[in-house]
Amino acid sequence: MTYKLILLRHGESDWNAKNLFTGWVDVPLTDKGRAEAVRGGELLKEADLLPDVVHTSLLRRAIMTANLSLDAADRHWIPVKRDWRLNERHYGALQGKNKKETLEAYGEEQFMTWRRSFDTPPPPIEKGSEWSQDADPRYADLGDAAPLTECLKDVIERFLPYWESAIVPDLKDGKTVLVAAHGNSLRAMVKHLDGISDDDIVGVNIPTGMPLYYELDENLTPVTKGGRYLDPAAAEAAAAAVANQGKA
Amino acid sequence: MTYKLILLRHGESDWNAKNLFTGWVDVPLTDKGRAEAVRGGELLKEADLLPDVVHTSLLRRAIMTANLSLDAADRHWIPVKRDWRLNERHYGALQGKNKKETLEAYGEEQFMTWRRSFDTPPPPIEKGSEWSQDADPRYADLGDAAPLTECLKDVIERFLPYWESAIVPDLKDGKTVLVAAHGNSLRAMVKHLDGISDDDIVGVNIPTGMPLYYELDENLTPVTKGGRYLDPAAAEAAAAAVANQGKA
Repeated sequence: MTYKLILLRHGESDWNAKNLFTGWVDVPLTDKGRAEAVRGGELLKEADLLPDVVHTSLLRRAIMTANLSLDAADRHWIPVKRDWRLNERHYGALQGKNKKETLEAYGEEQFMTWRRSFDTPPPPIEKGSEWSQDADPRYADLGDAAPLTECLKDVIERFLPYWESAIVPDLKDGKTVLVAAHGNSLRAMVKHLDGISDDDIVGVNIPTGMPLYYELDENLTPVTKGGRYLDPAAAEAAAAAVANQGKA
Repeated sequence: MTYKLILLRHGESDWNAKNLFTGWVDVPLTDKGRAEAVRGGELLKEADLLPDVVHTSLLRRAIMTANLSLDAADRHWIPVKRDWRLNERHYGALQGKNKKETLEAYGEEQFMTWRRSFDTPPPPIEKGSEWSQDADPRYADLGDAAPLTECLKDVIERFLPYWESAIVPDLKDGKTVLVAAHGNSLRAMVKHLDGISDDDIVGVNIPTGMPLYYELDENLTPVTKGGRYLDPAAAEAAAAAVANQGKA
């Protein structure tokens, strides 16, 4: 008896295309991102990996990706669970800023610290500012627990309780679970599953729109470390492109 | 203290456009149907009637309508519940047949009995036939309880337990509830809410893609009988068109 888990990072969003830091800003997918999501669903169908339940973040780009993929896989009718703990990393005061201009203004060292440090968050976002979420009704229940910035370590700390309380029970029920989420919430998951160190996880790049399949043993340990992309060649090319993002 | 319920019939589907009996056949929306769904969401937003939870059938045309409307209303992130008991009436052996040809072959009396009789279902669909759902995984749990044909009375009998067990508790929690469903499952709801007779309900036509808002008192009785369309003029024109469907 093994468990089936599929991770899916959302397709290209408006702000990926515009090279802006996004975080919790709720931007839509581009046409390319929508096509990626549909292709992801077709790959699931071709591999006969049909989700029984989907978990998404509260952000439109992950929700749309899940909707489009599941429709393409003819699994649009499965139960849906959503939680803020699957959200992208909150990018603090960088939200809404251009990546290239930030790189030029602050230099590569500071820039890469903000993007890739394990435990150094960017400066917190100012409440009430243009790209903050403090008036957003979907986070109203969080109150003061709502983050104003996050590093990857913070993401892991809020993600793991959701993994244990919501995703693991679905897996143990024998369900094939799809998690439609973001670069950093999926990093948190992959770090946990594969036992990746704090130093190494920041170099792991998960490509957009490509289903990553983990078969897990009875201890929820991956049968194959790192899982398996349903389209490995495309995933490899895309991961290299992500690693170079912001340097263009 | 009143409760807020919004009913939304899916927008035009491929088979509405082709004038075929659809029932449980899982056809997508047309471009027009998608636009109707988006417009429905915009109306919700303009009226500041923002759903806290959505209930859908297991059919793509209602699910897509919910997804597109909620995205347009900026409520894509709310909890989702799906159930077969919100499905369209199962049209039995008529599923997949052209409405005009059926009218010509069987005559107006038989045709209108199948379409509008309260308690006479069409002949049952043959198991394993092209447009039957007996191999569909989404209904596997139903076993022999899965219908092979339904009249409106059958729809009411399977719908009411869902109303009581799933929708009423959300209303009593103070949530604004959106139900994205179908002509006949919404007839079942309207009949129950407004206390419409068996004879009269078959003449009630709910237009597609137009949010119908019911404010309910503490006994779940409508404050205004028949509810209120958010775009009343468009709803009236559309209801007249639905009543004439199949006669063209």
